[in-house]
Amino acid sequence: MEYKISFIGAGRVAWHLSQAFTKAGFTIFEVYSRNKSSALKVTNKIKQGKPTNKTDLSGSEANIFIIAVPDDIIAEIPNTIVFPKNSLILHTSGTVPLSILSTHFYRTGILYPLQTFSFDRQVHFENIPVCIEASDTQSLEVIKLISQSISDHVYEMNSEKRRKLHLAAVFACNFTNYLFTLSKEILTKERIAFDILANLVKETTEKAFEIGPESAQTGPAYRKDFNTISAHLKVLSEEKNKKEIYELLTKNIVEKYKK
Amino acid sequence: MEYKISFIGAGRVAWHLSQAFTKAGFTIFEVYSRNKSSALKVTNKIKQGKPTNKTDLSGSEANIFIIAVPDDIIAEIPNTIVFPKNSLILHTSGTVPLSILSTHFYRTGILYPLQTFSFDRQVHFENIPVCIEASDTQSLEVIKLISQSISDHVYEMNSEKRRKLHLAAVFACNFTNYLFTLSKEILTKERIAFDILANLVKETTEKAFEIGPESAQTGPAYRKDFNTISAHLKVLSEEKNKKEIYELLTKNIVEKYKK
Repeated sequence: MEYKISFIGAGRVAWHLSQAFTKAGFTIFEVYSRNKSSALKVTNKIKQGKPTNKTDLSGSEANIFIIAVPDDIIAEIPNTIVFPKNSLILHTSGTVPLSILSTHFYRTGILYPLQTFSFDRQVHFENIPVCIEASDTQSLEVIKLISQSISDHVYEMNSEKRRKLHLAAVFACNFTNYLFTLSKEILTKERIAFDILANLVKETTEKAFEIGPESAQTGPAYRKDFNTISAHLKVLSEEKNKKEIYELLTKNIVEKYKK
Repeated sequence: MEYKISFIGAGRVAWHLSQAFTKAGFTIFEVYSRNKSSALKVTNKIKQGKPTNKTDLSGSEANIFIIAVPDDIIAEIPNTIVFPKNSLILHTSGTVPLSILSTHFYRTGILYPLQTFSFDRQVHFENIPVCIEASDTQSLEVIKLISQSISDHVYEMNSEKRRKLHLAAVFACNFTNYLFTLSKEILTKERIAFDILANLVKETTEKAFEIGPESAQTGPAYRKDFNTISAHLKVLSEEKNKKEIYELLTKNIVEKYKK
């Protein structure tokens, strides 16, 4: 059976996923977006597929539909879009459970690429972990096949486990990025370029994955160097938010590495 | 004038810094440690220098002494070690001010390498920012000369500014590493290897330095996706510490990206 894929949504996930599937030789049949010009951008980029804003896709030739819309919009899709009978309906979210689709459609699944996507940054999809789940074994085989054609790291994972993986990613990526923002603010005030930390951050992350973050911990809180901690809190005395975050994380690190 | 360097301390900073100076062609005259066998490990590694635990170094041939001991020990050094007259005395700390040395010695300075060091990890010193400061212009020239021989990124910076740089590094490295630890704990409970996040973390940090962390922010807090946030908090309901950190960082991100 030949798989023809359509995308529901034309955002960053669809942008990159449709390119990866195109590269892997799949036919992209159509790209749906409420805003047809967004869909057109995607089909122009991948040089195949029909941009559309029509919600009745019952006559589509596609047999796999990938819903790549913001998490809080996924629930509306079953009531908005009419899919061809017997098609396989997937979404790409880290936290939304499969049940949001499986209660409406016969064959459903998840294809969750664990990555942060931007339009203007090239990604190497083969390195991106893809977590998959399906309503039935036949659908799982299909999702596995198409996922393995774009990624070297495909994991079967149920919705509960996927949600926890997503939570772990929030800590390791979204929250760390926010700490980078606070760090940059401190430097900017001193007219020091954030780039000065690039090498140290690279070393920190490489080390965390090489020897484990629990073994890689350093810093004043780890050393229980309360003189330095006081000096830092003094610098932050006028910055309520940063001070609160500094205090909470320091408290936790001191506690964790208590002898 | 030929510069001969001695190290006070034989920890991780001395381990790497002495290797960098050896590679740059400098003579390391001696390595002092209370524990002579620690000093011996360093001199064996660099194949030069005399290990010693004698505190009277007044007869030393070295003219530059680099104090590389834990921050809270630096203050004891002027009362412990006897240095030759007119030698240049440096320390390598991010937070300890120059005054801790300059009130005791005539020629003093700072050589602060902005890096996290482990014994068993090779570093490329030329990429490591080195922040320098001195009690006088002549000493500054000496410190600049030796620093530029090991690093391509040498910055003059006073003690106050250096302290803020160190604080920024605590946010960007020590605290992020701790978030990696929490993330790994969440995954370990689900029997998922922490490695699954390696690619995403790499992408996150590269993006933060490429487009700025304030532009790179993503995630449920940034999107104000309160359904996902509630689902995450439910997962963390039994984990008081993680929940508290999740709530505080989420609150701050929501606040920052308020329309």
